[in-house]
Amino acid sequence: MAEILEKELHRLERMERSVKGFLNLNPIQRGGILTPEAKKAVEEWADGYSICDFCDGVLESIKKPPIDEFVHKTLPKFIESDEVRLTHGAREAKFMVMHAVCKPDSTIVVDSNAHYSTHVAAERNKLHIVEVENNSYPEYRVDVGRYADKIEEVKEKTGKLPSLALITFPDGNYGNLPDVKRVASICSEYDVPLLVNAAYAIGRMPVSLRDIGADFVVGSGHKSMASSGPIGILGVMGDLSDSVFRKSREYRNKEVEMLGCGPRGLPLITLMASFPTVYKRVQRWGVEVENARFFIEKMEGIDGIRQLGIKPTEHDLNFLETNVFYEISKKHKKGRFFLYRELKKRNIIGVKPGLTRNFKLSTYGFNKDELKKIIDAFKEIAMLK
Amino acid sequence: MAEILEKELHRLERMERSVKGFLNLNPIQRGGILTPEAKKAVEEWADGYSICDFCDGVLESIKKPPIDEFVHKTLPKFIESDEVRLTHGAREAKFMVMHAVCKPDSTIVVDSNAHYSTHVAAERNKLHIVEVENNSYPEYRVDVGRYADKIEEVKEKTGKLPSLALITFPDGNYGNLPDVKRVASICSEYDVPLLVNAAYAIGRMPVSLRDIGADFVVGSGHKSMASSGPIGILGVMGDLSDSVFRKSREYRNKEVEMLGCGPRGLPLITLMASFPTVYKRVQRWGVEVENARFFIEKMEGIDGIRQLGIKPTEHDLNFLETNVFYEISKKHKKGRFFLYRELKKRNIIGVKPGLTRNFKLSTYGFNKDELKKIIDAFKEIAMLK
Repeated sequence: MAEILEKELHRLERMERSVKGFLNLNPIQRGGILTPEAKKAVEEWADGYSICDFCDGVLESIKKPPIDEFVHKTLPKFIESDEVRLTHGAREAKFMVMHAVCKPDSTIVVDSNAHYSTHVAAERNKLHIVEVENNSYPEYRVDVGRYADKIEEVKEKTGKLPSLALITFPDGNYGNLPDVKRVASICSEYDVPLLVNAAYAIGRMPVSLRDIGADFVVGSGHKSMASSGPIGILGVMGDLSDSVFRKSREYRNKEVEMLGCGPRGLPLITLMASFPTVYKRVQRWGVEVENARFFIEKMEGIDGIRQLGIKPTEHDLNFLETNVFYEISKKHKKGRFFLYRELKKRNIIGVKPGLTRNFKLSTYGFNKDELKKIIDAFKEIAMLK
Repeated sequence: MAEILEKELHRLERMERSVKGFLNLNPIQRGGILTPEAKKAVEEWADGYSICDFCDGVLESIKKPPIDEFVHKTLPKFIESDEVRLTHGAREAKFMVMHAVCKPDSTIVVDSNAHYSTHVAAERNKLHIVEVENNSYPEYRVDVGRYADKIEEVKEKTGKLPSLALITFPDGNYGNLPDVKRVASICSEYDVPLLVNAAYAIGRMPVSLRDIGADFVVGSGHKSMASSGPIGILGVMGDLSDSVFRKSREYRNKEVEMLGCGPRGLPLITLMASFPTVYKRVQRWGVEVENARFFIEKMEGIDGIRQLGIKPTEHDLNFLETNVFYEISKKHKKGRFFLYRELKKRNIIGVKPGLTRNFKLSTYGFNKDELKKIIDAFKEIAMLK
């Protein structure tokens, strides 16, 4: 052990979260804000492996706290899947599915709005990717009918069907909600398993894997289920669960893809403690969409601001083209950082420092007064022109 | 979304940790108890992705909170390695190393005291395992010199050197600390990379990867670094970091084995906030070993109790053979559950319900008064005979 200086240790003491009390527009932050119930649970369960106090060898079979019921009964009802497993996050769930069902060097078909972690998970599994295009600017709508062409293309080129198809619902840039049922129906026809990345859907809006007709769905606790990171869930239908949930040859109660046990700790406690609230908020999704539309309408009332992606928006996550701010940045003494600073002055954060031309944001969980405050701030800043 | 009953939701409310205030002998619990500093930090940083407030695309490069310095400067000094990465736990770090450096169907050499998750991580990577034996009852000492024979054996049988060797330091049953430097020197001679599983060492006792001479070391935050689960660290030396830390072809700032970013959340905050205390407690490791020896001496003073594993013990985790309790269980009206109940009556938990013949426990972090209280409890219970 080499010596570590006092000042270095000192920087780890009293780490404060400087954005407390700010209105945070960052889409990755809106759905993960803890409920008061989860905050209370955090105090109780913060110690290391506390969740394993009464474990008999399998995390998801623990009765106290009630993980067994939560994983095997409550969550399967919530997302209407045959089975659910806990993961370290949506990306880890995607990796797990690919690892279990796709042979290395096989090809998967993915929408072109997929999250970068879909690509990295595929690369880690040594898979090739064929993309289903979107219709580009300004809508970026994925042409879901093209899944059939791409499956045919892979079959022709490699002599084999794709080992998996994946669709992002919604994507993390435009908040576009593709017609996922149609993708599922195409994939069923070809007998290609389909994974739905619902990291921005599960916990915000109702999602039913059964209704969609896909084989896998992944969700994110820290993104959309009012949980501390990192935690995710994986829903699986039917026969494919055999390969994803296969048991170790040597350790008969341990699942191989889970490495025995997955998220053995505090994030799971927050996922559980927040769940009653999450269950209820999903039923009020319509209000969130209304709020997002109200917000977009007012923002588009500012000259030089336009929503990209499918219109009218169907999701709280939206992408704005903001030429007005780009124009200001060219002359402002703070340059392209002016927008970040001007927003911060008004207690608003979440637009990435340096962006002025376009950016994404989320209105999830804001009430009308907060939305109005945010709209007014943008209006004021636009007047700097 | 199917309907979820009120009573089912209700069970997720006010989940209380019933073992509060108990003396907990469970080895997986002793080293993960949060420091007051970490408890404070948890309140501040519990929201979902809060750690990513000021992220530029790579978790481990975040400056606020000071993750960048912690991962790239502080931790490499702490475990004396060239590089450190954060993982979801020790098992995930083992999987990551195997995935990066071992081809499927290759063979690895592992000590026979290895944790089950080493086997499951190897199975997930489709690796074969050849074990280096221990000398069995009562010492279970791994015969480290046999690493050479086993490497030769693999070479002869498969035509190739093992793709990796692994040693558990200490193991999680007996707390045996094998001569890991000798293993490293053997592995260097054959040019076989060596991974040291130090989940029960890093954060408890000083560990230097450089001094050991191995290539990889993994540690566990929730097991031994006063952190909320799940979190671990991976230390890497020299050239092998190229394969483990390789960047995505498409996303040049994302590491493939990390799936972009690893433990993006609250457990990392606790690891950092507890670190100043952990750094200091490691320097008092001698006191912990003294306490463990004191405890074992007193326990062996009870007729029918004996420590297994290497003696005198060199670690807080120890394995006891307790024939006295087995004898009592045969006649006691609660049968084999009597010991768990008798201990619980005395505010002591952590011995698995139903065990009487032998069990493991840890004395980590207990003061002398607490140790005496525990010893007295066992003495009293032994008198039931």
